[in-house]
Amino acid sequence: MSPFVDKLSAVSARNNSFVCVGLDPDPDRFPDHLKASDDAIFEFNRAIIEQTSDLVCAYKLNLAFYEVSGPRGLESMEKTLKLIPDEVVVIADAKRGDLGNSARMYAQALFEYFGFDGATVNPYQGRDAVQPFLDYQDKGVFVLCLTSNASARDIQDLTVNGHPLYMEIASAVRSWNTNGNAGLVVGATNAESLSDIRSVAPDMPLLVPGIGAQGGDLAAVMQAGPDQEGGGLLINSSRGIIHASSEPDFAEVARAAAITLRDEINALRG
Amino acid sequence: MSPFVDKLSAVSARNNSFVCVGLDPDPDRFPDHLKASDDAIFEFNRAIIEQTSDLVCAYKLNLAFYEVSGPRGLESMEKTLKLIPDEVVVIADAKRGDLGNSARMYAQALFEYFGFDGATVNPYQGRDAVQPFLDYQDKGVFVLCLTSNASARDIQDLTVNGHPLYMEIASAVRSWNTNGNAGLVVGATNAESLSDIRSVAPDMPLLVPGIGAQGGDLAAVMQAGPDQEGGGLLINSSRGIIHASSEPDFAEVARAAAITLRDEINALRG
Repeated sequence: MSPFVDKLSAVSARNNSFVCVGLDPDPDRFPDHLKASDDAIFEFNRAIIEQTSDLVCAYKLNLAFYEVSGPRGLESMEKTLKLIPDEVVVIADAKRGDLGNSARMYAQALFEYFGFDGATVNPYQGRDAVQPFLDYQDKGVFVLCLTSNASARDIQDLTVNGHPLYMEIASAVRSWNTNGNAGLVVGATNAESLSDIRSVAPDMPLLVPGIGAQGGDLAAVMQAGPDQEGGGLLINSSRGIIHASSEPDFAEVARAAAITLRDEINALRG
Repeated sequence: MSPFVDKLSAVSARNNSFVCVGLDPDPDRFPDHLKASDDAIFEFNRAIIEQTSDLVCAYKLNLAFYEVSGPRGLESMEKTLKLIPDEVVVIADAKRGDLGNSARMYAQALFEYFGFDGATVNPYQGRDAVQPFLDYQDKGVFVLCLTSNASARDIQDLTVNGHPLYMEIASAVRSWNTNGNAGLVVGATNAESLSDIRSVAPDMPLLVPGIGAQGGDLAAVMQAGPDQEGGGLLINSSRGIIHASSEPDFAEVARAAAITLRDEINALRG
């Protein structure tokens, strides 16, 4: 197993959790007392991490939520990353994809500069856009396969070689996975396709967004999603946890929401 | 015409140029005297811009080259953007692609925070990953179609509906282009496919990387690439211009390389 998969398995077992919390802070939903802070995003994240880090296997940071504030946003992200306990997996949801030289720099930014454990990447440019990420053998690389947005199927469902494009992507990633550190992104809103994807990727970790606000079907995800050992799943919720409340007790409410999701998931485990 | 296409046409005419210079600075190739600078990336870009802004229609900044230095890299980018003359088009080569809410934030970061005139985006997540960019009616949105990397055809050449996926993407983008501000990225290394793409996108601007270091065929690009008015092309060169020399006179050498490329292109115009 890759060091990434080892780390994921260890923290999943330790915290008895498949929950990945999306640290995608929306300042419009912050409680009023935080709005006056010099670095409200960081203060918000700190409170969430303090209340949830014993309940999760991973945090996922969507970089759009930090880049929108320019260099200061990246500073907030950098400070946030330093707070996350070492044993918890941290994923850069950056969906980068570029040709070799540029992809190497994106990978360097995410894995070396910021120190993420894993990252999401886009497969549209083919193997050499993904390989520089996979070359970091101790890191996890989640390739977009079947995403959770409404129009995902515009492109991902096109028929190629007698099956949907997302199945072609899943097979391609399996063939690229010589370091054992690749995973796939499969939206919970497409749970009916999960078992097909799992069949060609029996041992890759799956990052599953789309639970909660996006309406994914948790029972179907737990039916089809686990790997042969019953693990290999990161089930992400962002707004449904971190913005469950905009009141001063938002972090405690987030904790309660994370417990609820963790327990719902665990009740559905085989 | 969209304000973006107007701006591109105006600067192309003014500078008699289809040249887009890629500001993708590689510090390993900087001349020694810059290496001691507090912000060598900015100083490098400043020299290049001073020597080339009258020769180009656009600059294109690949964000990987800035993000690799974290928040400071974005500061260098921000300072660089302020130096570029207003009449020159500036494109964020960010290749972002994410679902609605996140795509909106990426678009806000690039178009509002940093003030780019245009951006590259990835089509794999379908229309709702592209639409938030297109919603900025005065900005240009270049969707990856057929890219210039060696393994682009791993995915982009898969057959769907009887033609390659990149043709399906070109047709999809045409249907999404209700604001007239969409364009396509087509690598010069795939010049033989350019006329097919141009046939379904007769009036969209094409951003064409892959000239120079990547070995694209300029004559073939100029044969098939121009729109009905003989324009609508941004031909990008990065390393071939900005890193033509690592000596103290690198910026003058870059100017000479930009003139050479501009003139080669113009000699091939119909």
